Amino acid sequence: MDSQGIKDVIHGMGARARAAAHALAVLDTEKKNDILRAMADGLREQAESIIKANAKDIIAGEENDLSPAMLDRLRLDDARLEAIAVGIEEVADLPDPIGEVMDAWTRPNDISIQQVRVPIGVIGIIYESRPNVTSDAAVLCLKSGNATILRGGSEAIHSNKAIAHALQSGGHVAGLPDDAIQLIPFTDRESVSVMAGMDQWLDVIIPRGGKGLIEAVVSRARMPVIKHYDGICHTYVDREADIDMAVAIADDAKTHKPGVCNAMETLLVHNKIADDFLPRIATVFTDKGVEMRGDSKTQEILGDAVVVASDDDWDTEYLDLIVAIKVVSGMTEAVDHINCHSSRHSECIVTDDSARAESFITRVDSACVFHNASTRFSDGGEFGFGAEIGISTDKLHARGPMALRELTSYQYRIRGNGQIRSLHATT
Amino acid sequence: MDSQGIKDVIHGMGARARAAAHALAVLDTEKKNDILRAMADGLREQAESIIKANAKDIIAGEENDLSPAMLDRLRLDDARLEAIAVGIEEVADLPDPIGEVMDAWTRPNDISIQQVRVPIGVIGIIYESRPNVTSDAAVLCLKSGNATILRGGSEAIHSNKAIAHALQSGGHVAGLPDDAIQLIPFTDRESVSVMAGMDQWLDVIIPRGGKGLIEAVVSRARMPVIKHYDGICHTYVDREADIDMAVAIADDAKTHKPGVCNAMETLLVHNKIADDFLPRIATVFTDKGVEMRGDSKTQEILGDAVVVASDDDWDTEYLDLIVAIKVVSGMTEAVDHINCHSSRHSECIVTDDSARAESFITRVDSACVFHNASTRFSDGGEFGFGAEIGISTDKLHARGPMALRELTSYQYRIRGNGQIRSLHATT
Repeated sequence: MDSQGIKDVIHGMGARARAAAHALAVLDTEKKNDILRAMADGLREQAESIIKANAKDIIAGEENDLSPAMLDRLRLDDARLEAIAVGIEEVADLPDPIGEVMDAWTRPNDISIQQVRVPIGVIGIIYESRPNVTSDAAVLCLKSGNATILRGGSEAIHSNKAIAHALQSGGHVAGLPDDAIQLIPFTDRESVSVMAGMDQWLDVIIPRGGKGLIEAVVSRARMPVIKHYDGICHTYVDREADIDMAVAIADDAKTHKPGVCNAMETLLVHNKIADDFLPRIATVFTDKGVEMRGDSKTQEILGDAVVVASDDDWDTEYLDLIVAIKVVSGMTEAVDHINCHSSRHSECIVTDDSARAESFITRVDSACVFHNASTRFSDGGEFGFGAEIGISTDKLHARGPMALRELTSYQYRIRGNGQIRSLHATT
Repeated sequence: MDSQGIKDVIHGMGARARAAAHALAVLDTEKKNDILRAMADGLREQAESIIKANAKDIIAGEENDLSPAMLDRLRLDDARLEAIAVGIEEVADLPDPIGEVMDAWTRPNDISIQQVRVPIGVIGIIYESRPNVTSDAAVLCLKSGNATILRGGSEAIHSNKAIAHALQSGGHVAGLPDDAIQLIPFTDRESVSVMAGMDQWLDVIIPRGGKGLIEAVVSRARMPVIKHYDGICHTYVDREADIDMAVAIADDAKTHKPGVCNAMETLLVHNKIADDFLPRIATVFTDKGVEMRGDSKTQEILGDAVVVASDDDWDTEYLDLIVAIKVVSGMTEAVDHINCHSSRHSECIVTDDSARAESFITRVDSACVFHNASTRFSDGGEFGFGAEIGISTDKLHARGPMALRELTSYQYRIRGNGQIRSLHATT
C-alpha cells in the first residue's frame, strides 16, 4: 500500500476509535468487567489459532536470526496464553479508577466543584516484539474506559493479529463497543509517523521500545507522549551503610534480572567505606561473571579485577552483566553524578543514617528513589498496582510505574443554582 | 545575532536553569515566601523604571497601530504595578504544594511507598502582549519550586525586561537562586523554535497566545506541551430549563466579557423550549448589540433578527459580541454537537432536572462542565486556586484551570530494610 493509503486506513481507525471512546466512557464498571472476562474467554477459545499464528512469527524470527532471548520473548504456548487470560481476569478484579471524586469543594458563592476521574479518550501504543503487550495494553485501556490503537512490531505481527482478534470477538459477545480495540495491520515506520501526526484522533501516544523507536515518535508527535525510556539506575553505598545489606542490594540490583530497565547500571561508593565494601561486592560479581568497569580509585582497590571505565560508561544502559563503579568523596558527589547521568528512572541509597537517606531522596531527581531496598522493586506489580503499562521516564502526567490511574484524565463538574459571574464573582 | 548565536544563548540559559532548578527544589516554604515578598518589594522599588520602559512599548505599539484594546492590555501604571505586587504577596500566602504526600502505603514485604509532590524542574513559558504574565508566571513557578525561562512577545519586550530585572534583583536580596527566573532577550520566532527543541533543559513548555504561536510550538516541541488553546464554549438550554435562569446565564456567558476564552460562543436550545426561550434571549442580545447567527429553526422563530449560520460558525471562537444559535432535537444532539465542535474547554447545561444534568455532564468530553452556572466561572481565581497560569485545553497532566498544583510532578520514595527482589518479591 502507498503512503496515502496507509494514512487513510490509520486515520479511519482513529475516527472510529474516537466514536468508540465516547461509548466506552459511559460504560459502568460491571459492564467493563463482564467484557474483560469475555475477552479472557475469547483468548482461551482461540488458543489454537493464536499458537498457530505465533509459529509463523517464530519461523520468521529464526530466519531473521533473532537472538535466542528475543525468540523466547516472542514464543507463546498454552501456559503463557493461560497466564495472559488470567492477567485479564485480574484486571477485571481491580478497582475501577473512573468516576472517582479526586477532590470536591464549595465556593463562597455556593457553586460546588468536583474533580472527577475520567478516561483520557483514545490511546495509541507503539511497542516491539512481545505479543503479550497486545493484550496487556488493550485490557488496561479498556478497564480505564479508553479506546486503544495498537501498533506492534513486525516480529510479532501474526501473533498480535490473532490475539487482537480473540480479544475483539470474545469481548463483542459481552458488549465491547466496536472499534474500542484496534490493531494497525502495518508494521513499517510510516505507520508510526502517521500515528504521531494524528493529534485529532489520539489523545496520547505511548512508545515502548528501543531508542530509535522512541526518537521517531518524539520527533514527530503532535500529541502528548509518555515515554518509556531506558533505565540507567544507580545504587549509592553511603559511608553509613550496613555492608552486608549493601552487598545483597547491589548484587540483586545488578544480577537478578540484568536485562530489564530497573536493573542497576552504576554503583557509587562512598570513599570512607570503599576499602571494606568493594572487595566484598567484587567477589560476588566475579563469581557471577559480572564485568566491572571502574574509575581510578576503584582500580586502586580492586586492581586487575576491574577494567578502566570510559566517560561513556556513566551514560550507558548495559542491560547485561556489566557494571560501572565509581568511588565518590561524599553524598553530594553521588547526587550530582546521578542528576547528571541518570535516566531519572530509579536510584537507591544504602545507609543506616535516615537523615542522610532523606537528604539523598529529596535531592535526587528521579521517578523512584529507594532507601535500603533494591531498585528491582521499581515495578507496577511490586508497587501493588496489579498491572502496568510500563515505567514512565517522563515527569508530566505519569512518572514511574504506570497503571490504571495513570490512564485517566479528570474533569471539573461544577453545579450551581443560577450563578452568573457579573453578579456572583468571588474574585 | 545569527541563528547559531541565538541558539547558544538560549541553550546556555537552559543549562543554568537546570542548575537553578536543583537549588530551588530543596528550598523550604518559608524561604520561598521570603523571596516572593522581596520580589514584590523589588517591583515597587523599580516602579519608575518599569513604567518608563513600558512607555517605550506603548509608543512602539502606537506606531505599529495596535488596537486600543491591545494598547490597554499593554499599558502599566502605578495602580496596575501595585496590583501585580499584591498578587505576588497573595501567592506567598498560598499553601506550598511541594512535599505534600499524595499517597502512602506499605507492601506485604514491609516496603513502604510514598508518592510525594515535587517540582517539575524547568518550565518554559511563551506568551504574548500582556507584561503582567512575566510576573504571574515567574511567581507561580517559583512558589512551586521550578526554574522558569520566559519568552514574551515583541510588543512588551521593554516592559518584560524591566519587570524581570525587578523580580530578579528584588529576589536576589532574599536568596533567590541565580538563574531561577530568566527572560529570553529575543522576540523572533527563531527563539520559539530553539526552546521547542531543547528537551534536555526544558521539562515542559507552556504556550499562551494565538493559534499561530501554539501551532509553532506544537509542531516543533520535543518535550511535553501544555496548550492553552481557544475556548469554543457552549451553553445548552434543556427542555426542563428555568427560562429566567437560562436567559441570565446565556446573557452572562456571552456578554459579560466576550473577549475571553470562557465566554460562550454557541447556544444550543432544546426544540421543546425554543419558542419560549429564544425570543426572550433575543431581546437581551439585540439590546446589547450581539449579532445572532442561527440555524434554520432559529430563523423560523426569530425571523430577521438572526442571520444564517454557516458551517464555519460552529467551529469559530468569535471573542466578540457574536453568538451562534442552534435548535436541537434533544440532549443527545446537543452532546454530539459539543463533542464534535467544542474545543473541550467549558460547557454548561441549564436544566431543573438533575438526572438530565448528570447525563449531560458525564457524556460531554470537556475540561469543565457546568450545571446551572455560567461558563464564565471557568477560572483559577473563581475556582479558589488563588492564581492561575491559564486554562489548559489538554487532557494530560493539567486540564482546565491550571495553578500551583499543576506545576508539580511527583516522586515515589520507597523505604525498606534490606529487601531484595530475588528473596522478597510480592508478585
